[in-house]
Amino acid sequence: MKILDCTLRDGGYYTNWDFDNGLVDLYLQSLEHLPVEYLEVGYRSKPLPGYLGKYFYLPLPVLKELKSKSSKKLVVILNEKDVRAADAEELLLPVKNYVTMVRMAIDPKNFKRALELAQKIKELGFEVAFNVMYMSTWKEEKEFLDLLDKVDGVADYFYMVDSYGGVYPEDVKETIALVRSKTGVRLGFHGHNNLEMALANTLVAIEQGVDIVDATITGMGRGAGNLKTELLLSSLQAKNQLNFDYNELAKVVDAFSDLHKQHDWGTSLPYMVSGANSLPQKQVMEWVGKRYYSFNSIIRALNNQTLGKRDN
Amino acid sequence: MKILDCTLRDGGYYTNWDFDNGLVDLYLQSLEHLPVEYLEVGYRSKPLPGYLGKYFYLPLPVLKELKSKSSKKLVVILNEKDVRAADAEELLLPVKNYVTMVRMAIDPKNFKRALELAQKIKELGFEVAFNVMYMSTWKEEKEFLDLLDKVDGVADYFYMVDSYGGVYPEDVKETIALVRSKTGVRLGFHGHNNLEMALANTLVAIEQGVDIVDATITGMGRGAGNLKTELLLSSLQAKNQLNFDYNELAKVVDAFSDLHKQHDWGTSLPYMVSGANSLPQKQVMEWVGKRYYSFNSIIRALNNQTLGKRDN
Repeated sequence: MKILDCTLRDGGYYTNWDFDNGLVDLYLQSLEHLPVEYLEVGYRSKPLPGYLGKYFYLPLPVLKELKSKSSKKLVVILNEKDVRAADAEELLLPVKNYVTMVRMAIDPKNFKRALELAQKIKELGFEVAFNVMYMSTWKEEKEFLDLLDKVDGVADYFYMVDSYGGVYPEDVKETIALVRSKTGVRLGFHGHNNLEMALANTLVAIEQGVDIVDATITGMGRGAGNLKTELLLSSLQAKNQLNFDYNELAKVVDAFSDLHKQHDWGTSLPYMVSGANSLPQKQVMEWVGKRYYSFNSIIRALNNQTLGKRDN
Repeated sequence: MKILDCTLRDGGYYTNWDFDNGLVDLYLQSLEHLPVEYLEVGYRSKPLPGYLGKYFYLPLPVLKELKSKSSKKLVVILNEKDVRAADAEELLLPVKNYVTMVRMAIDPKNFKRALELAQKIKELGFEVAFNVMYMSTWKEEKEFLDLLDKVDGVADYFYMVDSYGGVYPEDVKETIALVRSKTGVRLGFHGHNNLEMALANTLVAIEQGVDIVDATITGMGRGAGNLKTELLLSSLQAKNQLNFDYNELAKVVDAFSDLHKQHDWGTSLPYMVSGANSLPQKQVMEWVGKRYYSFNSIIRALNNQTLGKRDN
C-alpha cells in the first residue's frame, strides 16, 4: 500500500496555489524522511482566466527545482474538463523528466472523453491515475460503469474520490466491490473530512486491499479538507504497519499549522451538512456566507435542488 | 437510542468549569429544540484543593436555575475516586429535585468500590450510569469482568469510555460483545476524538444497539475533545433517524466556536500519538510543552513506561 501526499495541490485551494518558498523547502525536506511514495505538487493547465499561482501551472523551472530537492515520485494533476487529448503533448512532454505520474480529475459524465486523454498521457510514458469524482453517485451512472473495463492497461491507479465527504465505511466497501466487478485495475482512495470520516474510510479502503491512498499535511485542502497525513501515519505506525521519524513529521505539521491559523481549513457545520446530504459544499458555503438566509432554508433549498425541484 | 450532551461537564476542562452566564443560557435555549434527552451540566464534588469553578461543584442554587431554564433531564457526574458511598447522601440528596441521573467516572481497578457507591445513589432515587474508563484495556481486567454482572438492577446505563481516544470500530464491536457476555445492562458509549474516530465509533455503537451516546457542542472536551454534537445530529438527520431545527443548532455551535478561538480544543499530533498508542495524553502534552524533548524521545519514553521499563 502506497501513500500519496497532495498537500500543495489540494491545499492550493486556500492559497490560490501560492506557497512560501521556505515552507515548500521544509515540506520537501521533511517528506524525504516519511513513508510517502508520491508527492502531488500541483496542477498543469493551459492559461485560465483570473490569477492562479505557481503550483496551479507548475512551469518547467519550478518542477525542475522541486525535483532537484526531492527523491520522491512527483505527480501533477489535470482537470479533465479543461484539457483535451490534443493538448496533452504540449502540456506534459516538457516535464517528462521531472514528473512520474499524471492524474486526471474526472467527472464520471465525461468518462469516455477522459479515456482518450488517458491513452494519450500513457503513450507519452507517464504513470496514469484516474481520480473519478462523486463516488457516492456511481451506482446510478450506467454509461460510466459500462466503460469501466476500458481502464485496464491504461490506468496505473483508479481512484474513488469522495467528493462530498459524505461516504461511510460501508459505502467504501460497496464501491470497491462495484469497481472490482468491472475491472482488475489497481485502486486508490481520496477521502474528504466533512464528517470526520476520512481516516475511518481510508482504513477500510486499505483493509479492502486498495493500492494507494491520499492525504495532506494537517488535512489542508478544499473545503473541509482531506485525511491528515499525520493522522494516517500515526495510526499505521501504532499498528506496526510502517515506521518513521516523528520529529520530521512534527516539523512539517508545525509549519502548516501556522498557515492554518490564516486560512482555517477543516470541517464546520455547513461542511458537515453538505457532506451528510451529498450537497455541493461550494453552494452551502456561499449561501451561509450571506447571513440573511437561515440554515434551515438553505438545507431545504439544496435538498429540493438535489431532488430536481425548483427552488423557492 | 438517546443522546446525552455533556458540553458543560467535559468542556469545563478548558475553562476550569466556569462559563459565561449568557453562553449557558443560549446553550440551554438551543438545546431545548434539539433531539438530546440528557444534559450533563457538570460535577458534584466535595471541596478539592485549588480553584474549581461553578460547574465543578454545582451548588443547589445553580442547579435550581439550570432546571428552571431547561426541560431536559439534567445529569451530574461524580469522580468515583473522590467520593465514597458514605458521602453520597450529603452530596446528592439536596439536588434530588433537579437532577435526573448521576453518573460515576470509574477506573475499572476500583470497580468493586464503585458498586457500593452506585447502590447508594440508586437508593436515593436517581438514575445511575457507570462511566467506566479505559475500555481498550478491559480484556485484561479479570477482576472487573468477573464483577460485571453485579451492575444488573443497579445501573441504568453502563458506558464504555474510550479514555485514550484510541479505539476503532472493530474494538467497539468487540467490547460490546464482551460486556454483553456478562450482563444485560443497557449500554452507552463515550468517545474521544484523538484519531477523529469519534463519529465512526459512535455510529458502530449505535448500529450494535447501544442505548445512549455522548457528544459535546463543537467537540469541546478534555484534550482532543469529544464527538461533536452537531456532527452526530447532522449525520443522523441525513440518515432520517431524527429531525430538528438547524437554526438552533447553528446558533449554539456559533457561540461555542467563539470560545474555541480562545481555547483551541481538538486533536493535534501529540493527541493523535497518545490515542494511537493508548498513551496518557496528559503526559504527552506536558512533555511536548517542554520543547527540549524531541517527539521521538517522548514516544520512546512513553512506550517504555507502558511496557513497564524504566525511563531513560
